[in-house]
Amino acid sequence: MLALHLGPDGPRLIDRPPPTPGPGEALVRVRLAGVCATDLELVKGYMGFEGVLGHEFVGEVEAAPDPAWRGRRVVGDINAACGACPTCAAGRPGHCPRRTVLGIQGRDGAFAAALCLPLGNLHPVPDGVPDECAVFVEPLAAALQILEQVHLRPSARVVVLGLGRLGQLIARVLALTGAEVAGVARSAASLARLPPGVRPVPLADAPALAGADLVVDATGAPEGLGLAQALVRPRGQIVLKSTTHDLGRASPVGWVVDELTLIGSRCGPFAPALRLLERGAVDPRPLITARRPLRDGPGLLEAAAAPGAVKVLVEPGG
Amino acid sequence: MLALHLGPDGPRLIDRPPPTPGPGEALVRVRLAGVCATDLELVKGYMGFEGVLGHEFVGEVEAAPDPAWRGRRVVGDINAACGACPTCAAGRPGHCPRRTVLGIQGRDGAFAAALCLPLGNLHPVPDGVPDECAVFVEPLAAALQILEQVHLRPSARVVVLGLGRLGQLIARVLALTGAEVAGVARSAASLARLPPGVRPVPLADAPALAGADLVVDATGAPEGLGLAQALVRPRGQIVLKSTTHDLGRASPVGWVVDELTLIGSRCGPFAPALRLLERGAVDPRPLITARRPLRDGPGLLEAAAAPGAVKVLVEPGG
Repeated sequence: MLALHLGPDGPRLIDRPPPTPGPGEALVRVRLAGVCATDLELVKGYMGFEGVLGHEFVGEVEAAPDPAWRGRRVVGDINAACGACPTCAAGRPGHCPRRTVLGIQGRDGAFAAALCLPLGNLHPVPDGVPDECAVFVEPLAAALQILEQVHLRPSARVVVLGLGRLGQLIARVLALTGAEVAGVARSAASLARLPPGVRPVPLADAPALAGADLVVDATGAPEGLGLAQALVRPRGQIVLKSTTHDLGRASPVGWVVDELTLIGSRCGPFAPALRLLERGAVDPRPLITARRPLRDGPGLLEAAAAPGAVKVLVEPGG
Repeated sequence: MLALHLGPDGPRLIDRPPPTPGPGEALVRVRLAGVCATDLELVKGYMGFEGVLGHEFVGEVEAAPDPAWRGRRVVGDINAACGACPTCAAGRPGHCPRRTVLGIQGRDGAFAAALCLPLGNLHPVPDGVPDECAVFVEPLAAALQILEQVHLRPSARVVVLGLGRLGQLIARVLALTGAEVAGVARSAASLARLPPGVRPVPLADAPALAGADLVVDATGAPEGLGLAQALVRPRGQIVLKSTTHDLGRASPVGWVVDELTLIGSRCGPFAPALRLLERGAVDPRPLITARRPLRDGPGLLEAAAAPGAVKVLVEPGG
């Protein structure tokens, strides 16, 4: 089968036999996959990953320990935990120190004709949810994780910094609470992509948003945290979705003096993401800017990094 | 009256008339004051403060808009808010952008024969609480603030990093919850000062404490946050009591991947601190390492900075 493989010399298209499921694992034929900012970071060396890239997908079960799953359309939680360590026993399998992560850490990913995941990671996709929506479940779940971690009141003032792939989904999910949501970005195209009822604010006008109850940094850049700190009110909350190493203008002195809470946020719950898609409460399809065949290989990543690109979908059969 | 004044040329003892209370303010004769790490930071230029130093005190009301207060023994909340701005209206007077702070920002402090504070800031001291305990109410309240911000379960594992003046009080307060509390310090003398039931752990042995539910950084040093990050479990909480500008070994990438929560923590509630002292649940007196007369002037600060010093008390009448 074809697969986009990241090796020491960078990403390249390879042809190899389909993977063999381990104990308790299902073999899933990929119907559609999505390129994420993390894929681009992995190519730059983040996590030191080598293997097949891709972790956003919708697929169909081809083989499973429980035959009732065969033929079902599924999405899959990307963290595969050991199930036996103290972290798993404490109910935090997503943080299992021995976990593998689809297309990110120790497990081949979704930019391929097929992948393997533990059966327990799979979630059936309701019939009413098309592949083009289901492929967004993983990042939509990551957006919902904010509401797992923070009690966002309907009367709150929220700012989302950065309106790339994830920031757009975060703005949509947080808007469902009834809270006042502003989205901040440098690019006019990103601002124009915000749904009705979410206030588009050019970066230059962001200072006017000072006093926010919650600021989400989804910029992916070191400047994000400093701007979040400038915009949040005393005792307010900053959610960190950006993985950057340095602080930019941010300073822990202000965190203490203003008693801010900073909350690191990563992967989220799949079931509510599927429910929101089934209910039509979130429609991610306007974020699709390209559909490309897997045989484009590294060109897929270039397409996702191109100016103006938001979500690039990958068709393994294309 | 004598006062220890911080000017552009550093701290020096001055003689000046007692202050005149503003509208709604009381004049308080200082009975006993305490030197805090923040006083030493202010001398180094933190906050750019000029004025009389000192914010930990117990005193006696000499004049007040309500004469019922005259002669009462009091402690006082150090943040004097405007009472009229949106932050005050939102119930966060301690974060009022127009606030003055006793001996820290725009308001002369407690290293003097007398000071002024709004009547609303004062708390009567119960008869059973001696001056030597009451003078600790401000830092004890700052320790209690952690429990205002965090739900600490009795079954939790807690690490307090740094066992200086504040760290010692934090360890005592958190131990009251029943949680497993370890205190980490470099100095054997600091470890020896921990009360029974709090585990003393030399800095070199700190790695064995990894997996803690809550880590409090009270080191006052940039290394504190990195160590806290190494010791806290995934989805655990780090409370920041140290005001330092750089991160040391800490990295926001780990905060996101491990979904940590960082909570800046500053001043706290006086009433519960007084209740704990009245109940004898916390006895801060073993932390007193010196009592010095105010006329020692800058020598007070040197005494507090000396090796082995914990809490240096200041006697205005001495």
